[in-house]
Amino acid sequence: MAQFKRIAVVGAGLIGGSILLAAARRGLAGSLSCWSRSESSRATLRTFGVAEVFENAADCVKGADLVIITTPVDTAEQTFLAISPGLSPGAVVTDAGSVKAAILLAARRLPAVNPFIGSHPMAGGEKAGANHAAANLFENRVCFITPTGQDDPRALAAVRLFWKALGSTLTETDAITHDEIVAAISHVPHAAASALMLAVMDQPGFRLEAAGQGLRDATRIAAGEENLWVGILLANARHSVAGLAAVERRAAELRKAIEAQDAPTLRRLLAEARIARQSLDQSA
Amino acid sequence: MAQFKRIAVVGAGLIGGSILLAAARRGLAGSLSCWSRSESSRATLRTFGVAEVFENAADCVKGADLVIITTPVDTAEQTFLAISPGLSPGAVVTDAGSVKAAILLAARRLPAVNPFIGSHPMAGGEKAGANHAAANLFENRVCFITPTGQDDPRALAAVRLFWKALGSTLTETDAITHDEIVAAISHVPHAAASALMLAVMDQPGFRLEAAGQGLRDATRIAAGEENLWVGILLANARHSVAGLAAVERRAAELRKAIEAQDAPTLRRLLAEARIARQSLDQSA
Repeated sequence: MAQFKRIAVVGAGLIGGSILLAAARRGLAGSLSCWSRSESSRATLRTFGVAEVFENAADCVKGADLVIITTPVDTAEQTFLAISPGLSPGAVVTDAGSVKAAILLAARRLPAVNPFIGSHPMAGGEKAGANHAAANLFENRVCFITPTGQDDPRALAAVRLFWKALGSTLTETDAITHDEIVAAISHVPHAAASALMLAVMDQPGFRLEAAGQGLRDATRIAAGEENLWVGILLANARHSVAGLAAVERRAAELRKAIEAQDAPTLRRLLAEARIARQSLDQSA
Repeated sequence: MAQFKRIAVVGAGLIGGSILLAAARRGLAGSLSCWSRSESSRATLRTFGVAEVFENAADCVKGADLVIITTPVDTAEQTFLAISPGLSPGAVVTDAGSVKAAILLAARRLPAVNPFIGSHPMAGGEKAGANHAAANLFENRVCFITPTGQDDPRALAAVRLFWKALGSTLTETDAITHDEIVAAISHVPHAAASALMLAVMDQPGFRLEAAGQGLRDATRIAAGEENLWVGILLANARHSVAGLAAVERRAAELRKAIEAQDAPTLRRLLAEARIARQSLDQSA
């Protein structure tokens, strides 16, 4: 049974395209609509055959009772402004952005009659674009929801229902705590993997053809699309900067122990890292 | 047809155990022998039923025409001293250590009648120990051989034959160049993954249960056994230190661009890292 009259997805790349496929497969809405700035994405979305594809964001949200913003985080404010003229009164707006405090601020641009609830599904990958969309992208993945404590209860219930219906496990926290968490588990690792890749390619001994699985795994996320990540890191600057500074300090600690041929200190640091890493597997 | 009369593996953990299984499956030697310092490893090796298991390293190498040292790199010198009394004149000695210059120096401890050729199969994993051994561990993997230019041609031919027979692809280079290469593609990534894991676990936002595949992949190699890695990093100190210093510099560059909200610089750095990382996949 359709839980929503019409769901609009604004900015449909990997995440937006996957939402459309997942919502269609589950019959979550009476109808689906979407918009993408890029003509090639719109062409991909049309081939899915599950949603009405619009060339204008305001048209796309007309008549929708649930609107999901999946544009890059640094365009949130302009997206909110762009859709506002088309929003039906009472339509609930949510998003899928990797930062939440900055988007909560930007959402003040929405009409007062349109409640906003921030969301962040922990799903995706280094392959961007609607052509990599998958209906099962959100299944058994954590989705953060970041209520402010002053939310419209009906809007909050709708957003919870939506992500649960796509198979996600909900974690609710405030926007600041969310940003601190994703800095630690996602944004700092991304920047650190990029730093490692840049450092390695500069080394005189770097040979592409000799690279093994260890280097590939350690740098895999550095293959992510830079335009998305510039927006994320700048929007979560405070926590990303603190985490990168910690990476620099810890790398310097290891380096100094090696320089000093200090085996006990090096062993202690590597053992702490090993134990922490093994605890990640135990939690999986 | 057996290519060797008797192959002895000295210090049989993951690499040594896998050599025994691989050599047995291929019928590479008339007989196999091995030694391990640990009683539990010896018990595991006995269950393989492919090699005579010795409690004394010198006894293990008696009668062997090819001896492969697979003890941790920081014990190379004491291993060479320990086997010397048992070596048959003319027996060829090689190893599987992750550093080559330091081991080449240590190999001067061997009797003059026993030629040494350094080897380094790029195989293994974060799971150490003979109980994780696999007969196919070396198949389609790079194996470095590091001739000095003044090698016994018969010894060099024997070592080449041996690794090729296990399915490895040979790369020959001098020991210093080898150490520079593996610092860039293996030792620096290992230390950087450890630094990232240590930094992440210190962040106020770190939540074990929220960690996703990105963090897991970026830190996977940090789960490696620290005693092995202390030896490797200290034996390859010069190149590891240079690489870690580069990681610190690159992380600081990214951090400063984020602090300054400098989108063009951040985009350029992330794009360089992405392109370099994608080239790793293209070479795979």
